[in-house]
Amino acid sequence: MTSANDASHPELLDLPIGISASGSREEFDSMGSVEVPADRYWGAQTQRSLLHFDIGGDRMPKEVYHAYGYVKKACALVNAKADRLPGWKRDAIVRACDETIKGQLDDHYPLFVWQTGSGTQSNMNINEVVSNRAIQLLGGALGSQKPIGPNDDVNMGQSSNDTFPTAMHIASVISIDSVLLPAVERLVEMIEKKANGWLDVVKIGRTHLEDAVPLTVGQEWYGWAGQLRAAIEDIKLARAGLYDLAVGGTAIGTGLNAPKGFSGEVAAKLAELTGKPFVTAPNKFAAQGSLDAMVRAHASLRGLAVALIKIANDMRWLASGPRCGLAELVLPSNEPGSSIMPGKVNPTQCEAIVMIAIRVMGNDTAVAFAGSQGNFELNAMRPVIIDSFLHSARILADGCHKFRRFSVEETQLNTEKIKAYVEGSVMLVTALSPVIGYQNAAHIAEKAIADGTTLREAAIASGRVSQELFDQTIRPSDMVGEGLAGA
Amino acid sequence: MTSANDASHPELLDLPIGISASGSREEFDSMGSVEVPADRYWGAQTQRSLLHFDIGGDRMPKEVYHAYGYVKKACALVNAKADRLPGWKRDAIVRACDETIKGQLDDHYPLFVWQTGSGTQSNMNINEVVSNRAIQLLGGALGSQKPIGPNDDVNMGQSSNDTFPTAMHIASVISIDSVLLPAVERLVEMIEKKANGWLDVVKIGRTHLEDAVPLTVGQEWYGWAGQLRAAIEDIKLARAGLYDLAVGGTAIGTGLNAPKGFSGEVAAKLAELTGKPFVTAPNKFAAQGSLDAMVRAHASLRGLAVALIKIANDMRWLASGPRCGLAELVLPSNEPGSSIMPGKVNPTQCEAIVMIAIRVMGNDTAVAFAGSQGNFELNAMRPVIIDSFLHSARILADGCHKFRRFSVEETQLNTEKIKAYVEGSVMLVTALSPVIGYQNAAHIAEKAIADGTTLREAAIASGRVSQELFDQTIRPSDMVGEGLAGA
Amino acid sequence: MTSANDASHPELLDLPIGISASGSREEFDSMGSVEVPADRYWGAQTQRSLLHFDIGGDRMPKEVYHAYGYVKKACALVNAKADRLPGWKRDAIVRACDETIKGQLDDHYPLFVWQTGSGTQSNMNINEVVSNRAIQLLGGALGSQKPIGPNDDVNMGQSSNDTFPTAMHIASVISIDSVLLPAVERLVEMIEKKANGWLDVVKIGRTHLEDAVPLTVGQEWYGWAGQLRAAIEDIKLARAGLYDLAVGGTAIGTGLNAPKGFSGEVAAKLAELTGKPFVTAPNKFAAQGSLDAMVRAHASLRGLAVALIKIANDMRWLASGPRCGLAELVLPSNEPGSSIMPGKVNPTQCEAIVMIAIRVMGNDTAVAFAGSQGNFELNAMRPVIIDSFLHSARILADGCHKFRRFSVEETQLNTEKIKAYVEGSVMLVTALSPVIGYQNAAHIAEKAIADGTTLREAAIASGRVSQELFDQTIRPSDMVGEGLAGA
Amino acid sequence: MTSANDASHPELLDLPIGISASGSREEFDSMGSVEVPADRYWGAQTQRSLLHFDIGGDRMPKEVYHAYGYVKKACALVNAKADRLPGWKRDAIVRACDETIKGQLDDHYPLFVWQTGSGTQSNMNINEVVSNRAIQLLGGALGSQKPIGPNDDVNMGQSSNDTFPTAMHIASVISIDSVLLPAVERLVEMIEKKANGWLDVVKIGRTHLEDAVPLTVGQEWYGWAGQLRAAIEDIKLARAGLYDLAVGGTAIGTGLNAPKGFSGEVAAKLAELTGKPFVTAPNKFAAQGSLDAMVRAHASLRGLAVALIKIANDMRWLASGPRCGLAELVLPSNEPGSSIMPGKVNPTQCEAIVMIAIRVMGNDTAVAFAGSQGNFELNAMRPVIIDSFLHSARILADGCHKFRRFSVEETQLNTEKIKAYVEGSVMLVTALSPVIGYQNAAHIAEKAIADGTTLREAAIASGRVSQELFDQTIRPSDMVGEGLAGA
Repeated sequence: MTSANDASHPELLDLPIGISASGSREEFDSMGSVEVPADRYWGAQTQRSLLHFDIGGDRMPKEVYHAYGYVKKACALVNAKADRLPGWKRDAIVRACDETIKGQLDDHYPLFVWQTGSGTQSNMNINEVVSNRAIQLLGGALGSQKPIGPNDDVNMGQSSNDTFPTAMHIASVISIDSVLLPAVERLVEMIEKKANGWLDVVKIGRTHLEDAVPLTVGQEWYGWAGQLRAAIEDIKLARAGLYDLAVGGTAIGTGLNAPKGFSGEVAAKLAELTGKPFVTAPNKFAAQGSLDAMVRAHASLRGLAVALIKIANDMRWLASGPRCGLAELVLPSNEPGSSIMPGKVNPTQCEAIVMIAIRVMGNDTAVAFAGSQGNFELNAMRPVIIDSFLHSARILADGCHKFRRFSVEETQLNTEKIKAYVEGSVMLVTALSPVIGYQNAAHIAEKAIADGTTLREAAIASGRVSQELFDQTIRPSDMVGEGLAGA
Repeated sequence: MTSANDASHPELLDLPIGISASGSREEFDSMGSVEVPADRYWGAQTQRSLLHFDIGGDRMPKEVYHAYGYVKKACALVNAKADRLPGWKRDAIVRACDETIKGQLDDHYPLFVWQTGSGTQSNMNINEVVSNRAIQLLGGALGSQKPIGPNDDVNMGQSSNDTFPTAMHIASVISIDSVLLPAVERLVEMIEKKANGWLDVVKIGRTHLEDAVPLTVGQEWYGWAGQLRAAIEDIKLARAGLYDLAVGGTAIGTGLNAPKGFSGEVAAKLAELTGKPFVTAPNKFAAQGSLDAMVRAHASLRGLAVALIKIANDMRWLASGPRCGLAELVLPSNEPGSSIMPGKVNPTQCEAIVMIAIRVMGNDTAVAFAGSQGNFELNAMRPVIIDSFLHSARILADGCHKFRRFSVEETQLNTEKIKAYVEGSVMLVTALSPVIGYQNAAHIAEKAIADGTTLREAAIASGRVSQELFDQTIRPSDMVGEGLAGA
Repeated sequence: MTSANDASHPELLDLPIGISASGSREEFDSMGSVEVPADRYWGAQTQRSLLHFDIGGDRMPKEVYHAYGYVKKACALVNAKADRLPGWKRDAIVRACDETIKGQLDDHYPLFVWQTGSGTQSNMNINEVVSNRAIQLLGGALGSQKPIGPNDDVNMGQSSNDTFPTAMHIASVISIDSVLLPAVERLVEMIEKKANGWLDVVKIGRTHLEDAVPLTVGQEWYGWAGQLRAAIEDIKLARAGLYDLAVGGTAIGTGLNAPKGFSGEVAAKLAELTGKPFVTAPNKFAAQGSLDAMVRAHASLRGLAVALIKIANDMRWLASGPRCGLAELVLPSNEPGSSIMPGKVNPTQCEAIVMIAIRVMGNDTAVAFAGSQGNFELNAMRPVIIDSFLHSARILADGCHKFRRFSVEETQLNTEKIKAYVEGSVMLVTALSPVIGYQNAAHIAEKAIADGTTLREAAIASGRVSQELFDQTIRPSDMVGEGLAGA
Repeated sequence: MTSANDASHPELLDLPIGISASGSREEFDSMGSVEVPADRYWGAQTQRSLLHFDIGGDRMPKEVYHAYGYVKKACALVNAKADRLPGWKRDAIVRACDETIKGQLDDHYPLFVWQTGSGTQSNMNINEVVSNRAIQLLGGALGSQKPIGPNDDVNMGQSSNDTFPTAMHIASVISIDSVLLPAVERLVEMIEKKANGWLDVVKIGRTHLEDAVPLTVGQEWYGWAGQLRAAIEDIKLARAGLYDLAVGGTAIGTGLNAPKGFSGEVAAKLAELTGKPFVTAPNKFAAQGSLDAMVRAHASLRGLAVALIKIANDMRWLASGPRCGLAELVLPSNEPGSSIMPGKVNPTQCEAIVMIAIRVMGNDTAVAFAGSQGNFELNAMRPVIIDSFLHSARILADGCHKFRRFSVEETQLNTEKIKAYVEGSVMLVTALSPVIGYQNAAHIAEKAIADGTTLREAAIASGRVSQELFDQTIRPSDMVGEGLAGA
């Protein structure tokens, strides 16, 4: 095998992406030859997969290939550095990988989610595309597998079994960092901004849906922010498990056909290329036989979903009305709400985010189930897991963005209603409890409710509380504690 | 309002679909005007939704609009018959609906799944498209809402609240009948064909993964067929609940703004148009406040998924090997199985169908959750439910098709291996149990396993069974009962 | 082997249940001898299971053994009729089975849910208990397995593999018929009674939590009843699948060691003994290799759960307040609601039923997952499925009972509030839509909301509606359609 | 109110637990009086709950009350230190709390899981029991609420809304630390011990259930250990969220009726009493309005379940046989496996652990669903969550214990079979791939499989590999990499 320093080799041409050809081209693999569309870089195995797995409209997410581009590039760099791959091969492969990473070859990654459970067909898709693109760049014949072979060169020292979960982890981390977390951060910042603006607006609290004691609007909103902050933290904790990469384990974790040290070097290179703290997985058999880190990571997305359901439900209930609901909040009127009821405005962003969250909970069921179904040295349920993960991250991110922009940001208070509730509530009686005892306080509250009087009237009528004591004790603004965080 | 028999009205032009315009067009709704792409039929509310709900890549399935085409058409026909809608309006609306039903206007239905929970925006999408297409056919000005208004004419006597679940039911029934059931039927027929072909091939049974008594290959396959037959029956039972239609209930089930008898007549018309036994829902408040029939229907898809997991798992385990597994079945070699291990063949179709089934189980979680979250007169979680349902039906159908064609159909037996297992199994001792008692039989089996002898050797050595008795009793082909169905 | 007509045999003694002994007794099985508590009927295998599976506090539900009593009894009767089992053995076995069926031997069925996945240990538990009890009744020595052996006599012609799912089906059907359906029926009848009582009370409808057009309180309640009626129907449909019994399939479905016709005769006998339309399963391999009928049956319980969540949520929201909520309903005050807020009353029954329903949804996830994990001739996940099913049925039944008795039955209306909402709602404008067009109606509604006026004021001020027209058109009681069922 | 230093007060008597009375005793609350069993410490509200919520057999886990004992004790200590509660009251309360913590009062905590969603009834149960026990210790009259009142003294500065989730967190942390983690640790240590013992036993790897390249038995087992180690780490990470305590937030998070600083002091006291690093929750509105930390904690239990399913499945598949399965492992024979097939041994511990894991996955669905259903200042789905959590922890712990003791510990290798597989496998060809290229290697493998020859025969026959090269390259023991962790 030629060394990386070998001088005689084809020159790397600076050709634009694209194949000027029509009709079909013959490609081959170990099973024989296959006709593929002449203007596509993919080869025989991709074409076989398109035939055998044309199922639904679900395509392997492009983010998987972008991440895979990093994997192939890192391996080529490490292989070349170790003199296993000549420099000129490396350069051609790296160029095709960079194009893949940037999404410029997206049209050449057509496979469906539903395929082999190891992701081998997507690995071969990138092996074939990078091979043919590199061949093109080196002036070779597409489909010849020369001078760059999909298995022997692009896949050198690799297996789908170690590289596909590596690409899954990379794609997931990038998705969390670039797509999901920024959107959630902006949402929580907006909620905190609103909370700060309504720091001192006293409102009635509600437990069991029933009137309770007061808090401020700011505190209620800050509670929502707190849920989201915790969800963000948990996503970051779960993300840590994704930093462990399987690459280098090759077929089953033993690293067969990869040189000693390959796993660590490739992981280091991937860390360098992506700017993420990737390391080689400390236990390759766990890393390839399971997808437990993905299950944990998706559970953290579910945590966000759980929080969002609560928050969006609270908001739409507080905005219910305008005449026959709680009507404390006024959500922006983005669109006519009803095709039959004129003038109706509905909390549509809240509904969308709840539905998104429910979808994420469904995805979570699928991910955990699939995660449990590994056997021996491989979990062959990878595609459904990575598709679910990236889907969840994407719709959560977009959903948070729209929810923030078109609902939270322009939400306003119905201060009149908010004030009226505080004044009418009987549960302010709670503050009397330490003074006159729980039982006495209870009887006053019960009487006020039964008679339809104010709490003040009932309290004074009870003979247990003087007007002065009542007015001194029952001050809603003194009942909300201090600060946004509560007690 | 003009009568349906009014003579003076614009003529219906036979114009092809399409708007020769570029740039944008002004459309309006009750909130004001909006610019829409000039070459699209949709109006202001669709455009608002595109802005507010650009979330992920999930689009409302086209099948929903095709089904909605039937709803709008049926309503127009019934409204016209009752002289509420002039005949010339009816004709224009019906033409646009027919084009929708055929999928010819698909490009004009761009909305996302994530939108208002009632589906109002998709209802307005079709109201707007039908309105503008009808206006075009009548020579009017697009965006003028004249002479055909999206709300007043196309949506006449309707609300999203009753028509969207109606479209959900119609789309689901069509999907079950035209897409799902034929694919499952063909799969089960293929399995039964294989079962019949292997009627008499005696093989070892396995319980708890451990060797058990014999059955025939045909019986084992017939068991799988039986699971699928039962799943089909359950889908049909669940489908019955979808025949009840909400249309006519309008805003909240009372039928406000629809004439008496409208619900029954529209349902009858829909039955006529679709050839399905639709009827008006007997309880409109249940029909609009819940989506229970959809939850039940999806549970039946999950039933199919549960059966498919078991069947595909059995097949891939039985095909495991070729040298170090059970190796009773030989699945077709559709593609190279590994990027690193040359010559490897994997049960990829089985894996794909298991992943599909797991996705369906995730969808089921989402559907049931969403189904529980209705409030008062509306369940506002409709889009996620119909999207999940149609997705499940589609991937199950396509998956069954590929599984049948590329795995089941060409599966072959490794008869040598099958025979060797039967001969080697110690559990044939079971047939001795009624003769010499369970405990004595157990001791013979334990001895054979411990010593690594054949059952025959151990039995005779025990002194409890003569050679004659053994050979007379332990005849695998006599131990499989009669027929494919078992005892 | 003796014939059933054999004259010389021990006499059946009429001994009360119970063993007057202390300490331990030696029992044996094929693996050797084991000490069991001397006052218990169980034998070696039960004792082994208690040692190996002492996990959590979850015991196999007693209903499984009661059902199993029928199975053992039916088999004994059929075996005896076929002269395979002597009459005197049959009589002793039947007596012990009858005692089991009545629950009189419950203390002798101690096993945990978590055990072998086939339920073999519970089958052996009943084999051992019936054997020893029969031995006692025949004057034999406990633990001697003579004259009635647990395997050779009590388990004659049977396997756990066919009898345990048979017992599962029987227990489930009895649970549905005797426990669950009566409780749900009584709940729905109570809801219908309330609906009838409030037939004409006009209230505001709500969609998207927002004010909508009116309906009557009776209609809203009838909607809930409709959901429950449909859930009941679906439970009955799903129950039908449970009528198919596996018994007679023995070890793997082929009926090995059972005589021809045994399966049909035992099923017929079980139908006779239980009064339920049990039949022999038409496909024994499906019946033993899967638990699909159980998965389907539990899905129907989930359907009930989904409906109950919606209904209980509606009720507690409508009862929210008393001063700061919707406050249309007044739920009974069963207990002080808060340890700190005196006089607080909470919708505790609603909360309990929602939690029960959520538990059922969790059980459903477990059942479907377990249902998918069968392999070859056995699904070895039976105990978790039957435990989940009976648990769901029991808590749904008890929950419906308490919910009806302590919440629904004594719920009252806050008619003042209900009336005020109808009068205040702007959405009554919908009835103007067919008269003045949707857009004009929308502008009136929007103006009323913006200005805080009544709809009437805004309508008249718009100049599009006269006082007369308004008063003629906007009559809430004319806007609710006819009858409880809606349009 | 008396100061904590008040000298005149009843003396604390050293009375044993128990009430020598029969019949009933009158107790009261704000709603009136109720008869309770005379020999029980509980009061009116507990009794009301028993009447209203007698649902299923599910009781609130005792661990909740033990944890609650700490909460009540800590509050009493802090209240006394602040002179809000006299020292003599504190001492009586503390004594009753200590008895509760030790489980000595378990019989007095009878409530069902299904009750008010806030856990108020369980809070009142402990308030009442501690009150009456303290009254007894102080020589007072049971039921008099003097001198220790359940609300005014035992519940001083507290609400169910803050103390119940506090008790949930404490009970969960203790359950994780004392019950779950030790059991999982012992399991993983045993697996690692086995792995170390089989460090050098070369075996065939399997991917997609199909033959792959070799690894050692030790590596395979170490992979399982790695999964469990990661699951343990994740449980510990998730546990961190449980250290944040809501106590001090009182009714809705504002701390009404508790003095400034109370929350921090009580949390510090709880940390001291339990030895766990509890702190006051940084956001009380999030802490009481959500149960997100519980959802996250249960997700970590699910992670363990997912890993256990994979591991137990691997073990039972590898032990399948003895004659017709993979038969690499020999599991201990704990019990006869079949009631009909003599001598059968089944992987019952593996089945039990899989079923337990499936139950945990069902519990997880319930927990996440319930976690999403909070409203405003309270998530009223607490009982189903804590019951699910403690159930999952308990059965996982017990299950791991039994699985280790009765399956893993005594598992042995079938070294003959293991060796034969390695020798027979064709996939060793992979090591030739870097030498002769993937395609050439593939053709050799395909030929060997088709012809049924050994790999060596096919390789040499191909003419591409010399005997020397083959024997030098294809050395299984050189193909397994280095060490237990893989590449």
